[in-house]
Amino acid sequence: MTGRISAAYLIETRYPLEVAAAAMAGEQSSGTFRTVPGETPELLQRFGARVEFIKDIAEVETEALPFSRSPKTLGDAKLRRAKIGLSWNIENTGTVLASVWSTVLGNLFELHHFSAMRLLDVAFPDVFADAYPGPAFAVAGTRRLTGIERRPLIGTIVKPSIGLSPEATAALADTLIAAGLDFIKDDELMGDPPHSPFEYRFEAVMAVIDRHADRTGRKVMYAANISGDFDAMRRQLDLIERRGGTCAMLVLNSVGLSGVIEVRRHSAVSLHGHRAGWGLFGRSPDVGMTYLAYQKFWRLAGIDHMHVNGLSNKFCEQDESVMASAHACLTPMFERADRPDIAMPVFSSGQTAVQAAETYRRLGSNDFIYCCGGGIMAHPGGPAAGVQSLHDAFDAAAAGIPAHDYAATHPELEAALQAFG
Amino acid sequence: MTGRISAAYLIETRYPLEVAAAAMAGEQSSGTFRTVPGETPELLQRFGARVEFIKDIAEVETEALPFSRSPKTLGDAKLRRAKIGLSWNIENTGTVLASVWSTVLGNLFELHHFSAMRLLDVAFPDVFADAYPGPAFAVAGTRRLTGIERRPLIGTIVKPSIGLSPEATAALADTLIAAGLDFIKDDELMGDPPHSPFEYRFEAVMAVIDRHADRTGRKVMYAANISGDFDAMRRQLDLIERRGGTCAMLVLNSVGLSGVIEVRRHSAVSLHGHRAGWGLFGRSPDVGMTYLAYQKFWRLAGIDHMHVNGLSNKFCEQDESVMASAHACLTPMFERADRPDIAMPVFSSGQTAVQAAETYRRLGSNDFIYCCGGGIMAHPGGPAAGVQSLHDAFDAAAAGIPAHDYAATHPELEAALQAFG
Repeated sequence: MTGRISAAYLIETRYPLEVAAAAMAGEQSSGTFRTVPGETPELLQRFGARVEFIKDIAEVETEALPFSRSPKTLGDAKLRRAKIGLSWNIENTGTVLASVWSTVLGNLFELHHFSAMRLLDVAFPDVFADAYPGPAFAVAGTRRLTGIERRPLIGTIVKPSIGLSPEATAALADTLIAAGLDFIKDDELMGDPPHSPFEYRFEAVMAVIDRHADRTGRKVMYAANISGDFDAMRRQLDLIERRGGTCAMLVLNSVGLSGVIEVRRHSAVSLHGHRAGWGLFGRSPDVGMTYLAYQKFWRLAGIDHMHVNGLSNKFCEQDESVMASAHACLTPMFERADRPDIAMPVFSSGQTAVQAAETYRRLGSNDFIYCCGGGIMAHPGGPAAGVQSLHDAFDAAAAGIPAHDYAATHPELEAALQAFG
Repeated sequence: MTGRISAAYLIETRYPLEVAAAAMAGEQSSGTFRTVPGETPELLQRFGARVEFIKDIAEVETEALPFSRSPKTLGDAKLRRAKIGLSWNIENTGTVLASVWSTVLGNLFELHHFSAMRLLDVAFPDVFADAYPGPAFAVAGTRRLTGIERRPLIGTIVKPSIGLSPEATAALADTLIAAGLDFIKDDELMGDPPHSPFEYRFEAVMAVIDRHADRTGRKVMYAANISGDFDAMRRQLDLIERRGGTCAMLVLNSVGLSGVIEVRRHSAVSLHGHRAGWGLFGRSPDVGMTYLAYQKFWRLAGIDHMHVNGLSNKFCEQDESVMASAHACLTPMFERADRPDIAMPVFSSGQTAVQAAETYRRLGSNDFIYCCGGGIMAHPGGPAAGVQSLHDAFDAAAAGIPAHDYAATHPELEAALQAFG
């Protein structure tokens, strides 16, 4: 087993950058606070993390995070931001993804040297492509399961998020599928509660999906939220497969890395990755990790669809960050044609026909799921007109025609641009 | 199924506090950005999150986190910090812990209203005490398995963290157990790598443990790090049980909530919870969650030992925070005598005989594991003297005798106070 795992970090410290980088490397490999007898030069050479680069960025005035410390000998040393690159021998972790997680994250955020610490990127050697199955469906499989070619999938999230009975959920699904949707998902708040037991909800929605499939020849994908305890998740996965479902949704941050890997190994359907709680990792510019690094773990674990927010969204995230996340999902992790590992990005949060052209243009691809709530349900012409407005918007984008021009002959798009613009 | 889940948050916003609290309640229950047809007054009444309290804390000058927004109509509204209490009908989630996770965390950190958002506490209704097994061993079980009564368990972490062969690990364990240790754990970086396959390492260490147990009548607890994929974790748990091991270690943040629950249901040994990556959640005062809230999820999931850092530690965490974490682990979550659910706190990071008395005094209990590395291995008299110094320190603390007085007649303690004080 050969190769190295590498990772890049943003840091802020008063220590000399070389000392700070060495502290990171030591803590996350063979070292500890004190020199210990067993840490021989040979061991250090083979298992010690290597500092690959140090890039000084800028001097800053005040500590971003509290409680960092530096020795009195440093006096009033300047506070600096920098990028640090580290790498580890694959012999440290083998191909155990949980061990990589401990290695590239671990205690780093708590080291007293640092008043900012953020994982910017991580790279895995090829041996991980053999160890983990990766996304089993991703773009090609999702297109095959839904019968949708050469355009984005148009989807929605069942709302109200919580409180609808299985029957009410199915009735809403009926309206939405009749309107022409390709994809429906549960809200992350909706799991297996007493007022909408998973089994009843799933059966009710699938009956609707099947009825429409008989008519259209296409089966709408339903990302049913199975996130929970394994006994229940296994029963629910069995039901999804038995009943001809094509997707299961997982809340990544609660099911966990080992949990998701286990679901993947026992699932024959596509896995829709919801990032609820992502703000814990991504909201602060001074601590946490980038989505670029985050999504790589979940793709290795086998997630097919990854949420990336959307342009002009209702949250805090900036458009540039949204598009960087989407591009990351579509960028291969390994240089191997035999092992496609991309995930399909899912745009969601305040999306309507208005952002469609820009989303397509900036992504440079049709390989995504575009989830709208109000953009469909609140369209002045009703849900079917809402879905049509999205088809129009993406048709126009693909043909290179400005949406407002295309709208002159496409009234549903015109109405959407008026209502949501 | 009755009861409510409740949670408290620290927020920072320019919105009127009532509006901000309503936005949190809406996003995390039946609401979404737009009013949707199905959100009837009846549904909202039953499933809407309830704002339980709003406590204005202070006006602040500048946004802690970037990219929050407030409408122009608010003009130059003041930026305020406040505490917000929310509660949810148990009907929203049932007893699915992953659904609770999505409910109390979810998208909150990304809402544009807020420039700080931190989960301060969460409380579960009694029905969760039936739904989840909780810690199966905790204090009483850990004492029974190790044969240690009425004093803290003295432990250590195998160092170097990474790089030792199974034979070298066993040799080190031999030294440490001969010195009188009660507890040994793998570092979180050490899992199942090619240079120290779990099976070989575990067998080698257990052989040493058994040999000493024949002599002393007490079996040292070895928290072997099984964190990884489930196929391997199941094999490793089987081995631990078959071989008479008494503990398995899990890196909570990578195994995940669903993963830990599944391990607990298939494990007959105590579970040692490592919080590697905790800084992602806890390091910033402006985003994330408190350890008080964090540890409750893991205790419900069944973790017996929870890491809490240590007094005068080598990381950033302040002593007050360390002790609050340790107290939290020992505080029951439910008012039910039939269902003990406390976890045993594990002090670790730069610990020596020096902090022993203060740890005991501030915790007001002997029910903890005290892990020392250098505090044992770097004792001037050697490892056995290091362990003796810790016994002396805790004996003195329990008897109410100042360590320096007790040291006058206890040379190992005297040497430790000199070396590490």
